[in-house]
Amino acid sequence: MRGTMKILDIDAVQSGPNPHHVDARKVYDTDNAVAVVITLQPGESLKRHITPVDVFFYVLEGTGIVEIGAERATVGTDHLVESPARIPHRWINESGQVFRVLVVKVPKPKEETKLL
Amino acid sequence: MRGTMKILDIDAVQSGPNPHHVDARKVYDTDNAVAVVITLQPGESLKRHITPVDVFFYVLEGTGIVEIGAERATVGTDHLVESPARIPHRWINESGQVFRVLVVKVPKPKEETKLL
Repeated sequence: MRGTMKILDIDAVQSGPNPHHVDARKVYDTDNAVAVVITLQPGESLKRHITPVDVFFYVLEGTGIVEIGAERATVGTDHLVESPARIPHRWINESGQVFRVLVVKVPKPKEETKLL
Repeated sequence: MRGTMKILDIDAVQSGPNPHHVDARKVYDTDNAVAVVITLQPGESLKRHITPVDVFFYVLEGTGIVEIGAERATVGTDHLVESPARIPHRWINESGQVFRVLVVKVPKPKEETKLL
């Protein structure tokens, strides 16, 4: 009998195609929310983009630069960043180490993310 | 001018009161979702409880035992566990190390969590 528990090993999830050409693994996808783990190697970054819903980021590993609207900050492991809907944002890894962040979009977006 | 970016250092957040008497820090709370970081010291555990909405867990550190309904599994860092609404669940730390998990409830619960 299959149970109700669903366990996902993020290491074993394949990266999905994305316009940023980075490692982006969808780890949760329900009617209410979508979550993706993004890995940026040193020197990698996301393109500036707009998400139609609120996003929060939980930094899992390393240090990244986050840009939201006109603001910019350097953020490390175990920091949570809120990014409101429809504000251009992106992450940049200028460090010498891998940067990993959990991206949670709530509610589930009904439109595509738009690159700028 | 205050900007739109909100950054939270989880280390600096105070634990809120909770019926499990463990370190539970609310890190995100909007109309759409609530997120809490729970830390279980070796030997600590949550009481079995029911959440009125879907929950997903992202293991941040260490190894914990998760019980959801009649199922039980041992889960480590960078694993995501889905726990459907209204199924009794809890976490147990039987390891010798700290266990930390990000708990994301979506949508935002309108009723209290019920202990069993």
